[in-house]
Amino acid sequence: MYENIELIPGNSLITETPEQGRALAVKLARLIIKSTQPDASVREKLRGVYANDAAMLIAIGQTVAIEFATIAAANEYWKK
Amino acid sequence: MYENIELIPGNSLITETPEQGRALAVKLARLIIKSTQPDASVREKLRGVYANDAAMLIAIGQTVAIEFATIAAANEYWKK
Amino acid sequence: MYENIELIPGNSLITETPEQGRALAVKLARLIIKSTQPDASVREKLRGVYANDAAMLIAIGQTVAIEFATIAAANEYWKK
Amino acid sequence: MYENIELIPGNSLITETPEQGRALAVKLARLIIKSTQPDASVREKLRGVYANDAAMLIAIGQTVAIEFATIAAANEYWKK
Amino acid sequence: MYENIELIPGNSLITETPEQGRALAVKLARLIIKSTQPDASVREKLRGVYANDAAMLIAIGQTVAIEFATIAAANEYWKK
Amino acid sequence: MYENIELIPGNSLITETPEQGRALAVKLARLIIKSTQPDASVREKLRGVYANDAAMLIAIGQTVAIEFATIAAANEYWKK
Repeated sequence: MYENIELIPGNSLITETPEQGRALAVKLARLIIKSTQPDASVREKLRGVYANDAAMLIAIGQTVAIEFATIAAANEYWKK
Repeated sequence: MYENIELIPGNSLITETPEQGRALAVKLARLIIKSTQPDASVREKLRGVYANDAAMLIAIGQTVAIEFATIAAANEYWKK
Repeated sequence: MYENIELIPGNSLITETPEQGRALAVKLARLIIKSTQPDASVREKLRGVYANDAAMLIAIGQTVAIEFATIAAANEYWKK
Repeated sequence: MYENIELIPGNSLITETPEQGRALAVKLARLIIKSTQPDASVREKLRGVYANDAAMLIAIGQTVAIEFATIAAANEYWKK
Repeated sequence: MYENIELIPGNSLITETPEQGRALAVKLARLIIKSTQPDASVREKLRGVYANDAAMLIAIGQTVAIEFATIAAANEYWKK
Repeated sequence: MYENIELIPGNSLITETPEQGRALAVKLARLIIKSTQPDASVREKLRGVYANDAAMLIAIGQTVAIEFATIAAANEYWKK
């Protein structure tokens, strides 16, 4: 099923700003969940679970942090 | 909903000092939680949960540590 | 059993695009699970578990994020 | 509340020795917990929990390891 | 007990191919478990646990991913 | 209490071989646990817990993997 879902919007890690890079990190994390659970109704139900669970919200934060590390490095931290 | 919440204050990873970089790491981590759970009253309730749970406090520490690694690298560890 | 299962398709970390790199990250993560649990029927049963568990979906996202970091670095973030 | 608690003692990641860098990693990890749970009596109670819980001790070790990675890189591994 | 168990087969992180590097990552992860639990019969019993537990299989994947990141960097991603 | 326990044996991350570096990673991980739980009898009891728990053994593996990444980088992967 992974083949049918776009995993990286725009097929690039390069963004103009840190804010856009951060938004991309969030999207990358969500697209992995989407590719693993393609059923939108199930994902919607699970969203109700993790959005109200402190431990899961923290775990989502860890995932985004790891994705962002890669994107930030790809963009040389937007310093140039 | 992610689109409506600022994910990186100031839209930059660069800070003047390590202390400011650390504070930014904390903010980045919190803003991901905010974007995932935009309801302030729910977040306030969850704060009461994780602030009193040893395992969750440790997990928050891991998240901040990962965010800080990126920020510290972006600032070349404030050595210059 | 690890010896009998291919762990890296094509025996290379280099891909043409970020999208392909991301797909490779997903495959690497899945092949470790396959090598640890070679019984396809058990894996299929477990898929029904993790695809419906918010915490596990998040954990899968973390794993893919870590694999992707390596692949992205190997490809110099597809900037060249 | 984060604003009122010092997050990086001495406002620097640079230390003279690896041992001092390791001690700094421990402090950084603890200060995040302190800033998230500023009530010393609650933290003291939670200490009794995690200091006697194998899984939490391991998780603390992971947090310190991540903090230390950043500090070690900042100090170029104390090779100079 | 750590002293009596070889932790890195061949005492090197360098491999000829990514596939071999991946296999080494799996071995490194397993040898830490072996050194922490030297009793083969206990490890065999625990294998029956984690090989049938989705969350643990995912966690194994994370461990291997982290080990592989180091090995891949050591081999400069097998690009040379 | 952290001040009284040596956190890095020999006060250096440099080792002669990968095997020694790996052993150092194990020691660093254990010394954080020791500094957090200085009571040897409690640690001994907890050892009986984590050495027989698959999930905790995997978590220990993750911790060692993170420590080892730092040590391996410090030693430039023992390639020189």
